[in-house]
Amino acid sequence: MVHKDWKKILVPYENAIEELKVKFKSIRSELLSLGEYSPIEFVTGRVKKVSSILEKAKKYGVSEDEIEEKIEDIAGIRIMCQFVEDIYTVVDYIRERDGKDLEIFFEKDYINNFKDSGYRSYHVVIKYPIQTAMGPKVILAEIQIRTLAMNFWATIEHSLKYKYKHNIPDHINDRLKKSSDAAFQLDQEMSEIRHEIRQAQKMFEVKSNV
Amino acid sequence: MVHKDWKKILVPYENAIEELKVKFKSIRSELLSLGEYSPIEFVTGRVKKVSSILEKAKKYGVSEDEIEEKIEDIAGIRIMCQFVEDIYTVVDYIRERDGKDLEIFFEKDYINNFKDSGYRSYHVVIKYPIQTAMGPKVILAEIQIRTLAMNFWATIEHSLKYKYKHNIPDHINDRLKKSSDAAFQLDQEMSEIRHEIRQAQKMFEVKSNV
Amino acid sequence: MVHKDWKKILVPYENAIEELKVKFKSIRSELLSLGEYSPIEFVTGRVKKVSSILEKAKKYGVSEDEIEEKIEDIAGIRIMCQFVEDIYTVVDYIRERDGKDLEIFFEKDYINNFKDSGYRSYHVVIKYPIQTAMGPKVILAEIQIRTLAMNFWATIEHSLKYKYKHNIPDHINDRLKKSSDAAFQLDQEMSEIRHEIRQAQKMFEVKSNV
Amino acid sequence: MVHKDWKKILVPYENAIEELKVKFKSIRSELLSLGEYSPIEFVTGRVKKVSSILEKAKKYGVSEDEIEEKIEDIAGIRIMCQFVEDIYTVVDYIRERDGKDLEIFFEKDYINNFKDSGYRSYHVVIKYPIQTAMGPKVILAEIQIRTLAMNFWATIEHSLKYKYKHNIPDHINDRLKKSSDAAFQLDQEMSEIRHEIRQAQKMFEVKSNV
Repeated sequence: MVHKDWKKILVPYENAIEELKVKFKSIRSELLSLGEYSPIEFVTGRVKKVSSILEKAKKYGVSEDEIEEKIEDIAGIRIMCQFVEDIYTVVDYIRERDGKDLEIFFEKDYINNFKDSGYRSYHVVIKYPIQTAMGPKVILAEIQIRTLAMNFWATIEHSLKYKYKHNIPDHINDRLKKSSDAAFQLDQEMSEIRHEIRQAQKMFEVKSNV
Repeated sequence: MVHKDWKKILVPYENAIEELKVKFKSIRSELLSLGEYSPIEFVTGRVKKVSSILEKAKKYGVSEDEIEEKIEDIAGIRIMCQFVEDIYTVVDYIRERDGKDLEIFFEKDYINNFKDSGYRSYHVVIKYPIQTAMGPKVILAEIQIRTLAMNFWATIEHSLKYKYKHNIPDHINDRLKKSSDAAFQLDQEMSEIRHEIRQAQKMFEVKSNV
Repeated sequence: MVHKDWKKILVPYENAIEELKVKFKSIRSELLSLGEYSPIEFVTGRVKKVSSILEKAKKYGVSEDEIEEKIEDIAGIRIMCQFVEDIYTVVDYIRERDGKDLEIFFEKDYINNFKDSGYRSYHVVIKYPIQTAMGPKVILAEIQIRTLAMNFWATIEHSLKYKYKHNIPDHINDRLKKSSDAAFQLDQEMSEIRHEIRQAQKMFEVKSNV
Repeated sequence: MVHKDWKKILVPYENAIEELKVKFKSIRSELLSLGEYSPIEFVTGRVKKVSSILEKAKKYGVSEDEIEEKIEDIAGIRIMCQFVEDIYTVVDYIRERDGKDLEIFFEKDYINNFKDSGYRSYHVVIKYPIQTAMGPKVILAEIQIRTLAMNFWATIEHSLKYKYKHNIPDHINDRLKKSSDAAFQLDQEMSEIRHEIRQAQKMFEVKSNV
């Protein structure tokens, strides 16, 4: 497949990312403007690089023709939350939209069932209809929902995986797991004072002026 | 109606503006990234101020309960084009989406039928479904499509209308009409070299580096 | 000169563009927030592409070593104004900063002395000190100040120059000059109602809610 | 002091925030574009609300005339880092600019000397010259440099302080300290694998595509 084709293929994914980012950011601004607590801290998004798509396709034995239906994270949205409990509130928001502006394809709870590596996050894969200048299209997009601590850890694990080409040495892996425990510990301490904090943040929306 | 209520009412309009801006900007970036000419130069949007909504309601005898169904420009999107011909291309894009992510309510062609004041623009009023943190809702939004010259003129007319509370003195009105003619003249000169220019811009997407 | 070197050379120019855009945009927001009229409508900026830098160097016989001191528009800022008179107000703002956060190198008034092609704009070339991660540096930057009508015309002329590799055919050139006259005409009509408009805009800063 | 006056006073602080954010963000983009590791993760800024300024002035017995010279955090910049070590690299960057585009007024190391509450951050207060539409001015600005974990904790402590009007109950304070310990623990685990991670991030600048 030539360069030009990839560009054409990825354009609707770019647009979907822009739309989804706006939609989830709107939930936050809507709640804050109404004086409510927002379970969404911030939202990022990216389209997977062509080299990473091809690498993943190769790894899982996906032919080029099947890439768009088999690789579900070409479009990726990440939603960061302050508390573990907020993650499930965000999942509920997504479920309420099911059949409206998006359709849930499947969900994976890597928080209650965290990976051996220490990876924790909640994943929702959706089907998302997009209007392009060339006409309508339905694409897959993966929404990852995490706490700030989970995100910090995952970013670092990702860098190390790349450095060691997925063969992280044991002594590094041990440290990674220890830091995953520390991140988990922080999330737990936070959850315990969560009720106090939520009330505090709702009563005084002061964060923008910290 | 108290302050808090207005805030709640306007939140979905704010969100709709954000979504629609992203959608029309995506058409531009999509076409440019494919090496095509974009009929969209830039996109702006705003939610009408509460004071302006109430003023308009009063002027047209609209009761507060009917405001959301009778005042169609609470959410306003403006799309600027280089050439008059581009306006109709943009209208076609909107028509293709009719029944998909939006529904056309009505259209008004103030270009072929420009107002006595000299005002020229194409208006499309749409019904737009929006998912809020409180559930789904359908709102009205007005899309104004204009050339840069039409926009320049309209901005100035708007300022003067405010200054003179809709009673612009005759000598100012005469000048405004002369400047509307000059803007119209510029648009016509531009249309005549349009074919040349379109080809030039398509072949060399150099504008970002002017 | 290899690719890597160009990247290193252009980084301070990128930073200068970001700083200068913020500085001129701040003048606008400052004046508006004080209820004053802003002579600045909007601000854009860009770093010249390496290919364009090399082309210009070749055309003017500039050796690679002299590029940074001889090519004054590697960093380019463009300030758009509503009225011709505003351009000179902006020039005055720049002159007041001379010797403070920037130094004026030279000025060119292509408005009173417009080019044969029909090009009109005011140019100020400055020396600008920038702090990089590698230490301090002084670079050249060109500030172009124009009305919206001048900018519209210049954008189109630029596209055509590229299409015809600087040899625009006579019949196109004639049309370009006619459109330059129409743009000039529009600017003149505007200047005549300028006093009225300025007062109107100052009294009611309504533009953001047009 | 009337409302209008405050607006005028705070305008240069707003501008300073914009300039400083651009300057520190440029360090990050500069390093990344050169393939280097960036000690800066992200940068935020805010101007203190008038109500908070007046409250602080009252608390410390500062008269209204002395506010600008005595309250050093009217303009506040916050720089977030991945690792504790990065904080000191950022401090070095600021020191190198001392006497150039800013002047260091004083520094406070709340990392090695953390507060009883558990608060950790490095503070640098600077004098910053700003060009306004009204002429030049020198203002004070406070730069807070922290890890993501420190920032997370500080945000929550700030909310609670507001809720309890600076009288946080003991049982909440105890939990806050435990969570400060957990955040500290996370930072320490991170520092231990830092060398590995820094190398990884430098070799493969993949984070934008995680």
